[in-house]
Amino acid sequence: MIPVILAGGSGTRFWPLSRRDEPKQLLSILGDHSSMIEETILRLGPMTTKERPVFVVCRPDLVEPTLDVLKTDAKLEFIEEPVARNTGPAIALATAHLEALYGDEPVAFFPADHFIAGQKGFEQCLTLAAHRATEGAIVTLGIPPSRPETGYGYIECTRELTGGSAPEAHPVEAFIEKPDAPLALEYLKAGRYLWNSGIFIFCPSTLWAELRRQQPELSEKFDAIRNCFTTDPTSPTIGELFTEVASISIDYAVMEGAERVEVIPALFRWSDVGHWGALHEVIDTDDRENIVAADALVDECDRCVLFSRGSSRLIAASGLQDLIIVDTPDALLVLPRERAQRVKELVALLRDKDRLDLL
Amino acid sequence: MIPVILAGGSGTRFWPLSRRDEPKQLLSILGDHSSMIEETILRLGPMTTKERPVFVVCRPDLVEPTLDVLKTDAKLEFIEEPVARNTGPAIALATAHLEALYGDEPVAFFPADHFIAGQKGFEQCLTLAAHRATEGAIVTLGIPPSRPETGYGYIECTRELTGGSAPEAHPVEAFIEKPDAPLALEYLKAGRYLWNSGIFIFCPSTLWAELRRQQPELSEKFDAIRNCFTTDPTSPTIGELFTEVASISIDYAVMEGAERVEVIPALFRWSDVGHWGALHEVIDTDDRENIVAADALVDECDRCVLFSRGSSRLIAASGLQDLIIVDTPDALLVLPRERAQRVKELVALLRDKDRLDLL
Repeated sequence: MIPVILAGGSGTRFWPLSRRDEPKQLLSILGDHSSMIEETILRLGPMTTKERPVFVVCRPDLVEPTLDVLKTDAKLEFIEEPVARNTGPAIALATAHLEALYGDEPVAFFPADHFIAGQKGFEQCLTLAAHRATEGAIVTLGIPPSRPETGYGYIECTRELTGGSAPEAHPVEAFIEKPDAPLALEYLKAGRYLWNSGIFIFCPSTLWAELRRQQPELSEKFDAIRNCFTTDPTSPTIGELFTEVASISIDYAVMEGAERVEVIPALFRWSDVGHWGALHEVIDTDDRENIVAADALVDECDRCVLFSRGSSRLIAASGLQDLIIVDTPDALLVLPRERAQRVKELVALLRDKDRLDLL
Repeated sequence: MIPVILAGGSGTRFWPLSRRDEPKQLLSILGDHSSMIEETILRLGPMTTKERPVFVVCRPDLVEPTLDVLKTDAKLEFIEEPVARNTGPAIALATAHLEALYGDEPVAFFPADHFIAGQKGFEQCLTLAAHRATEGAIVTLGIPPSRPETGYGYIECTRELTGGSAPEAHPVEAFIEKPDAPLALEYLKAGRYLWNSGIFIFCPSTLWAELRRQQPELSEKFDAIRNCFTTDPTSPTIGELFTEVASISIDYAVMEGAERVEVIPALFRWSDVGHWGALHEVIDTDDRENIVAADALVDECDRCVLFSRGSSRLIAASGLQDLIIVDTPDALLVLPRERAQRVKELVALLRDKDRLDLL
């Protein structure tokens, strides 16, 4: 199985720490001094050899910054996206590239910026996933929900999940977009819904068959791209063809309509760490549930995030509840934890105001 | 009448903007680009001439910083406090100094860091005060209360005040320390209580008589100091004698027990601007009642203070209510407006932690 990391993050939701040139996957926000992409690479290490490295799909301009943040001698190779076309084309491009190198070996796609704990269970799930993929399934890892989360997509299974200690693959009934709160609660109670982790495993031939069936236009373009990869993998035609492709997510292009999708409930802890408010899921707090990653004077505060980077400024916080404070040399962010998702809009507002210096 | 500015502030309540070496009176926090002491000096300008400047009582180490912040050619002279001994001795020292220069002319004392608007009414009150002082009264200006404030001292009059447009002097029944909330409400309703503005006007002979009667020890020391001023105003003995004096406030030493105190209800707007939370009393806000003195992205915030100084950092604030954010190059303060008084304790905590770099 060939591991591929999707590193297409745009760096908005962890602003002001994340920037266009330094998106979330390049940051170390979990207090472990490694970037999230490095954590992801290390996690996939057992699956790699010198001849079969980890592949990273990203914007050309992020290759150098990514290499700069890596502290270990990771075995990795980059697949550059000529232009941004969402996850569907990005995954197809990588699949075409890897098919030319390794034939119809299963490929596994992983987001670059998620939190995972429980390496053994993670590897067990992937071993089963590779096995199911070689038998023709598109396999995804699903996260047993622990709360009625409205920020994730859900995967519906055909029957209730019992949750054993060994990995199991289940047929998928449907992929479901982010639900509203009552629906999320229903999903939580029903016991046959999982969070969509964004991890996918399949054989190239399976993807091409589904593209042919579901996305004939995309399929045609990628037949041409695959042809280039077998004849001249450095041909500029690849980039030209890719540029002509429409933007579409892998969920929408393939997963939702695929004939044979299976999900393996995760045997590991997971968070997409999607925003500042999610840090509490993955970082230890002080005894009043504050996360303090700053030179700080914390006076009667509860459940706050005090985060400083690139600045030695003291943060004096007094009597605050559920507040996020992120201090960087050129921008300071203050907002309630429940509004953490709003950061994306703030970045959009800054773009509208032409504050490109801060993006 | 000789105007004297008391500039003994220690710089804790407007931290992190105010510091030991840059107390509140040296700051321009009201958005007018002038320091508070300069505003105070300009306000007293009509009372001064080249031969009768404004006098400023302050710590010796604040003479230079004070001159540095002044942008106008103010006519002023410094009276240095050899050591800090609270307002009682500071006022007596200045009175002795001025008596040696101008005889028994009335002297008027003004805090250096208060807000006053309504110059004409201010001058009318002072004209009457000077007149009453020459007739032997200790005169104070009192502020008609507009809310049941627990942060100020009160002055009780012998009868209800009617509040005309011409200045009036009323006999004072008592000086009252900061009341609790129910008492403050009672004072507000009663109509014969005023806030203590800390402005006092009297003739030197009146002060000496009261000191002799109420504070014999202090009186004896100041008799010696006055003697020095008439024989050799530069004598080091003055400082030595002053150092031996006990710390005591003017209210406690003289006002509360004085025989003939009169109060003139203010015909001007006033605030002591005692803390960050009081800025809303004196600064115009945006349409959601925010005070924004920073490069800021203000998104759905209400009644906040966003204040930046010495830093070009953007403050992105989203969904905040009644919050104070003060950003300086080496310290950032975030706390609810209702906790603004707490800043003093935060500064004390920093002192305990030996963070003298931030004081």
